[in-house]
Amino acid sequence: MSQGTTKTTSSNKRILIINRGEIASRIAKACRELGHTAVGVWTDNEVQAKHLEMCDEWVRLPGSTNAETYLNIPNILDVCKKYKIDGVHPGYGFLSENTEFSQALVDNGITWIGPHPEAVRVMGDKAVSKEFAQKVGMPVVPGSTGPVKSIEEAIKIGNQIKYPILLKAVAGGGGRGMRVCHNEEDVRNNFEAVGREAAAAFKNGDLLVEKYIVNPHHIEVQILADRKGNVFHFFERECSIQRRHQKIVEEAPSPFIGDDEDLRQRVCMSAVNLAKAIKYDSAGTVELIMGEDREFYFLEMNTRIQVEHPITEEITGIDLIVCMIQSAFGDDLGIPSQEWIKRTGHAIECRICAEDPITMLPAPGTVTGCETNFPQGTRFDNCLYKGLQVTPDFDPMVGKLVVKGILREVAIRKMKAALDGLLIEGLKTNIPLHKVIMKNEVFVKGKYSTNFIGTEKPQEQVSTDMNFTHIYKQIAGIEARRMGL
Amino acid sequence: MSQGTTKTTSSNKRILIINRGEIASRIAKACRELGHTAVGVWTDNEVQAKHLEMCDEWVRLPGSTNAETYLNIPNILDVCKKYKIDGVHPGYGFLSENTEFSQALVDNGITWIGPHPEAVRVMGDKAVSKEFAQKVGMPVVPGSTGPVKSIEEAIKIGNQIKYPILLKAVAGGGGRGMRVCHNEEDVRNNFEAVGREAAAAFKNGDLLVEKYIVNPHHIEVQILADRKGNVFHFFERECSIQRRHQKIVEEAPSPFIGDDEDLRQRVCMSAVNLAKAIKYDSAGTVELIMGEDREFYFLEMNTRIQVEHPITEEITGIDLIVCMIQSAFGDDLGIPSQEWIKRTGHAIECRICAEDPITMLPAPGTVTGCETNFPQGTRFDNCLYKGLQVTPDFDPMVGKLVVKGILREVAIRKMKAALDGLLIEGLKTNIPLHKVIMKNEVFVKGKYSTNFIGTEKPQEQVSTDMNFTHIYKQIAGIEARRMGL
Repeated sequence: MSQGTTKTTSSNKRILIINRGEIASRIAKACRELGHTAVGVWTDNEVQAKHLEMCDEWVRLPGSTNAETYLNIPNILDVCKKYKIDGVHPGYGFLSENTEFSQALVDNGITWIGPHPEAVRVMGDKAVSKEFAQKVGMPVVPGSTGPVKSIEEAIKIGNQIKYPILLKAVAGGGGRGMRVCHNEEDVRNNFEAVGREAAAAFKNGDLLVEKYIVNPHHIEVQILADRKGNVFHFFERECSIQRRHQKIVEEAPSPFIGDDEDLRQRVCMSAVNLAKAIKYDSAGTVELIMGEDREFYFLEMNTRIQVEHPITEEITGIDLIVCMIQSAFGDDLGIPSQEWIKRTGHAIECRICAEDPITMLPAPGTVTGCETNFPQGTRFDNCLYKGLQVTPDFDPMVGKLVVKGILREVAIRKMKAALDGLLIEGLKTNIPLHKVIMKNEVFVKGKYSTNFIGTEKPQEQVSTDMNFTHIYKQIAGIEARRMGL
Repeated sequence: MSQGTTKTTSSNKRILIINRGEIASRIAKACRELGHTAVGVWTDNEVQAKHLEMCDEWVRLPGSTNAETYLNIPNILDVCKKYKIDGVHPGYGFLSENTEFSQALVDNGITWIGPHPEAVRVMGDKAVSKEFAQKVGMPVVPGSTGPVKSIEEAIKIGNQIKYPILLKAVAGGGGRGMRVCHNEEDVRNNFEAVGREAAAAFKNGDLLVEKYIVNPHHIEVQILADRKGNVFHFFERECSIQRRHQKIVEEAPSPFIGDDEDLRQRVCMSAVNLAKAIKYDSAGTVELIMGEDREFYFLEMNTRIQVEHPITEEITGIDLIVCMIQSAFGDDLGIPSQEWIKRTGHAIECRICAEDPITMLPAPGTVTGCETNFPQGTRFDNCLYKGLQVTPDFDPMVGKLVVKGILREVAIRKMKAALDGLLIEGLKTNIPLHKVIMKNEVFVKGKYSTNFIGTEKPQEQVSTDMNFTHIYKQIAGIEARRMGL
């Protein structure tokens, strides 16, 4: 195996981590490893925050709301000046995809640990990014370019993009004002009814026509680029297990792509091409939707590090946060070629959230204890400590349980054992849901789509892979046993 | 990548872990993952032992000495019967290479989680194992087959095996009664003097002649075999950083073998051939000595899991303890072929020992606290807890700090950060020594041999890679700073 090139590495930079929770700890670890000073932030709501233990210095952000603290651009710029900050890592969420903030840092001579602001701007707008992707040859979900005025026009588009198609209200959302049409007759029978529905619900009867993706998969490609024009992919992740568009379980590689190396190559290289077209120069993710026919289409590009980056780190052995910081300061990534990046084994991440395992609604509370007894190959990125108050102000995710095994079946076995070995006291969490998913036959076979946990889908699409009523009962059973009922 | 074959896995076995410390925890994790019941043992000296937290059940071993507890074969057999044990994992040390114990278990219908007792017997005897290795075509260090009676005989052997040679007392040890001879003249000048030295020191003047390995490397190959005749290697480890024949730092792959894939292949396949010859059927390690000329010779085979197995797990992604248990119960390993086993990145292990960092002598004490702040990619297999008493009864090793990076230089950087982030209170440890090694230029370049920390070597061999007096000063400096002096 080639040993790669030697890195030249900047060190002794002062890096402000303008985030909280597990990602702030994760970034602090990378800063320390690189010899940088990790400057953490805290608010009066979280004086004990665990990420501060990992940092070298701490700055208080005054105020009590996120708008006053983590989202307060003028104050953050003042902090940067006062504390002689060389670079800012935004993590995910908060200001991580904010063009104004990234531009303000650059204008003030402070390194933004993310891509150049123009990439943030283009990819931050759904319509603009879709147009950009299409222009550079990336497939997007086919459909009308604007509202469709007549049944005949809808049928014409349907014949062009091939059935099934989706009739959907321009102003729609939440699954309302949508209808799947499998042929011309469906369009004739439904067009006017959906228009009336849309007009009643959204005061706008205009309809769009879009190809309906059958049993879709959420596949995404991890990108890492330096400031010298090198763009690499780190293979794909499958994040099809979602509820209300929130990812719950992620895995790498994608079980749906499986052994189809040709498809994997096309998926990953299309993401590299998009990133090259926008002169991408940091860590980022290209999200795709893939139908059961294995055709794939651009969804969006996230111009930041993502929650689920650990599974990619586990299968490639590359520390993405370290590389992202190196890239921002113009250092070499030490990666001689795309071919040099290998993957081994299989990684799974379960997002551990403070929520009611049955309603899946956030369940605020105070952590009174945490015990772990994990199998070998477990990683638990978390922000748990005794006394942590989970409030509605922040994301209910309190940790990411990640396992790696040499085979997918080994990873599932390890995840089951890891979930059994994770006890969080004082909070309701979704651990019981994860236990049910890991035992679910459809999941174990790797045959799931985004319909796995079906919700907020058009009426016609209720082909949920998993019987949700049955799951409720299973979770309730686990909870009852846990409480000794 | 091929996804391998599906494993058939036994579960619900009751496994007795007849060991303590970090390895007992490690084995318990594997048992739980596989759905087995982990039965741990404890003694009155260690009622709080941390590994018990990882186990499902606990058995007290009466007595206060190791002979009465961990080495007490009749009592352990009684425990097996009383607690309906299906299999016994011995870990390392204690009874892990005891033929009598392994045979007694087999005779009692209990699964020995190790190789068949005949392999334990053959490989457990230095002379028998060397003869066995030679017979199956594995090179052994060339030399006389018995005592050499005259100068002329010694010279004749020297000419056959090529100089330099080592004259060494049959009854010798500890570096005394040894002399390196570079040519005939050296033999003539030294033969009688070494004989007299030997006679005076050991009351036996007989001498052996052996090829002297210049700047030797300790290289070892991890083997894993099932009970169906499949034998695989998991690449090599380099363990040349030793003091008093105790390994201090290990890494995988070997920096000395480096990119020489042909040599790596020959080294690893010679170990596989040896293991096949003895019908090996468990985890084991073939230890080799390799000279600066890259010739290698059999040293011994350890018929058990080794302390440094984690670095192999890190670069191959395979859980060796899990596989070892599966093998013992006749299950498939899920490994379709040797070629399927890949390695990525570089792993380093530092043995964290309770010892004076300057004298390197065990330093008993009581742990009053432990704090960690590790970079991503760190694994700390340990038995530390507040109140742990390190006594002369047990090995002073209290933990194994393991890092993995995509490149060796990344692994070193991570290890430096990990050592900085490990605070053990109440004990003197060798952490300062590890910090010095990680910064040492010879180590960083990967150019070290077993002379790196030179001691107990023949007089002529004092070509230590590292100036030890200088190291003492560096360590003393680190200690002084740590204590605020």
